[in-house]
Amino acid sequence: MSQYRIFKVEDAIAYVREAAGQGGEVPLQGEEIGDGNLNQVFRVWKPGESRGFIVKQALPYIRCIGESWPLTRDRARIEAQILLRHGSVCPEYTVEVLHHDPELSVMLLEDLSDHQVWRQALLEDASFPEAAAQLGRYLARVHYHSSAFHLDYQAQQAAQIAFANPELMAITEEVFFVDPFRDHERNNVEPLIRAEAEQQWADAALKVKVATLKHDFRCKGEALLHGDLHTGSVMVAAGKLKVIDAEFGGYGPMGFDLGVIFANLLLNFCSQPGRHPADAGQRYQHRRIEEILTLWRSFKADFVTLEAKSPDPALAEPGYVQAFMRRVWRDALGYAGCEMVRRTIGIAHVVDLDGIEDPDRRAPCQRQALALGRTLVMEAEQLDEEQLRVLLLEWVS
Amino acid sequence: MSQYRIFKVEDAIAYVREAAGQGGEVPLQGEEIGDGNLNQVFRVWKPGESRGFIVKQALPYIRCIGESWPLTRDRARIEAQILLRHGSVCPEYTVEVLHHDPELSVMLLEDLSDHQVWRQALLEDASFPEAAAQLGRYLARVHYHSSAFHLDYQAQQAAQIAFANPELMAITEEVFFVDPFRDHERNNVEPLIRAEAEQQWADAALKVKVATLKHDFRCKGEALLHGDLHTGSVMVAAGKLKVIDAEFGGYGPMGFDLGVIFANLLLNFCSQPGRHPADAGQRYQHRRIEEILTLWRSFKADFVTLEAKSPDPALAEPGYVQAFMRRVWRDALGYAGCEMVRRTIGIAHVVDLDGIEDPDRRAPCQRQALALGRTLVMEAEQLDEEQLRVLLLEWVS
Repeated sequence: MSQYRIFKVEDAIAYVREAAGQGGEVPLQGEEIGDGNLNQVFRVWKPGESRGFIVKQALPYIRCIGESWPLTRDRARIEAQILLRHGSVCPEYTVEVLHHDPELSVMLLEDLSDHQVWRQALLEDASFPEAAAQLGRYLARVHYHSSAFHLDYQAQQAAQIAFANPELMAITEEVFFVDPFRDHERNNVEPLIRAEAEQQWADAALKVKVATLKHDFRCKGEALLHGDLHTGSVMVAAGKLKVIDAEFGGYGPMGFDLGVIFANLLLNFCSQPGRHPADAGQRYQHRRIEEILTLWRSFKADFVTLEAKSPDPALAEPGYVQAFMRRVWRDALGYAGCEMVRRTIGIAHVVDLDGIEDPDRRAPCQRQALALGRTLVMEAEQLDEEQLRVLLLEWVS
Repeated sequence: MSQYRIFKVEDAIAYVREAAGQGGEVPLQGEEIGDGNLNQVFRVWKPGESRGFIVKQALPYIRCIGESWPLTRDRARIEAQILLRHGSVCPEYTVEVLHHDPELSVMLLEDLSDHQVWRQALLEDASFPEAAAQLGRYLARVHYHSSAFHLDYQAQQAAQIAFANPELMAITEEVFFVDPFRDHERNNVEPLIRAEAEQQWADAALKVKVATLKHDFRCKGEALLHGDLHTGSVMVAAGKLKVIDAEFGGYGPMGFDLGVIFANLLLNFCSQPGRHPADAGQRYQHRRIEEILTLWRSFKADFVTLEAKSPDPALAEPGYVQAFMRRVWRDALGYAGCEMVRRTIGIAHVVDLDGIEDPDRRAPCQRQALALGRTLVMEAEQLDEEQLRVLLLEWVS
């Protein structure tokens, strides 16, 4: 069955039958549930059972744009391998890959219908108090085990090659570090904040800092990243968390994943004045600040614990891991700033901001996101944890 | 003829006949001339002609140690590819590869018998006033053309994979960053400086800095490095310079190559009080300081000129290349410090120091090399060009 074709529901059902060993006599139902930008996603289930299967298939182009933007289907193979590798060191928080077929560019994944997308949960003000700490642990585990702390030169270089993902990481380079910092046709700038966007495109000091972050994203292969860890790539349920959607993964700086998730919590932070009366909005803004700090502390504590068993005598030098964590923190703030900017005026926005219907309420939130993003990029080198908290408290409004 | 065997002189002659198209009727002579640690090297020539050919063959082990330390012969293929790539962008200063045979692990190289090894020239106080500037230009060209300034994501990642050199770069990791900073059986510590070595092995602040440099050597794949650019890898003649011996090359931080050559000039600097009366020694020490600064300025000027044509709109941001050069400079000083330490107490020494016959004159020079190495590692972040000059002038003795 391994000749590539674009799946319809019945293909997804047939694939589940074969890959999951669901015998022919069992009736199965399916539906397309994809809402992402890149792929098609089906849910397939037995009538009467709440838990089914997820079938995710890469198309030979970007789904939300169409055949005019072709894109390697090989991303499905790369994603499956990254999820399997991350799952091997952190099964608790990585979506399970039950089967994958590189020819069909398809994966069979565990069904997380009993979970909720974290972004949506945050927008509904639902409380998942463990999510931030869980995500910190996830990042510590997947980053540590792919890093120089854990792998010797040859093993890490083999992994850097095995997980090379040039086509998708080149897209990240463009849409993350290039387009949003100049007037580019791929950008999506709302008229009310055009002046602020233009101001930023002329901001030479900012662009020099962004160039450093871009250069490091390309050259600093510290760990096997998720590569797109926004709040829509995280599924949450009571006491549980699963990370999905790793097609943008590959080796890069650890601070990148941390920065992307910080930024998405901060984009929600910036959206609060457009969504709630001041007292409720401020309460949620304080929550976001705590989530960011909790996530970071959980990451750091777990990473330092893992690092204590590092087989590398040089990197295991007492004091080094703390010095390294300071570098990761600074990188994270810089990447967080870029993500805030690019999600506000770049090609791919977030519903936290764009979902504010009244343009006159939306624009101040977007302005705040741009300005806070710039601040993080510019001040990343100076801010420690406590200083970040103080800074963010000043932005509560 | 491509079945691997360890060459004798007659094999080298036969290889030259075939690879260089030297007909069977021409008598050829040959001799083994290798004095390196890793490979065997032959010179083959026609009687009466001054310019012949060089045949360099990798053995399946490290030549200076023997069969007890096996080492991939594939290094010959990697070296040939690196020299060809470097030669394609900087033929003026890269030894020419005339032919190579991956099966035989052998290369045919241009004969540089009319050149002198730069290390030897420095020890003989011979003056090659253009060498430092030429080497700076060489590094600017080979680094720029393999960097993110010149290559897009996919081209650079393809190069990172094509030039992956895990076995030899893993050796660099060990002998450069690990062994010399702890009591290891591979070290070679002279009794008179044992106390200083032990002091260093207990120096936690130094070891944390070295861990950062090691981590970056592994993870920061900025450019296709030469990988072992000491003064013995540089051949000089009147107005001419050629770089040889790139088997340790691969992607890494640009500051690494610069640091290694800075360090080898400084090891010569430190050897002067053991070789010359104070007035002559100090004159040569001043020359070494000028060579280091000239090399750096030449590198930077050429790199900035090349960068002006960068196709990358983000990295071409005015002001970024200067910020990047400051990072490269800092990296270079750190790697220079490591190289000074490892060439003084690690497995592979330099004749500049070890060639001082009287142990009581040698030991102070070695102590100075260790101490200056430590200073460079510890102060790399703080020293600009002028501050380095001032610091080095204080070490003139």
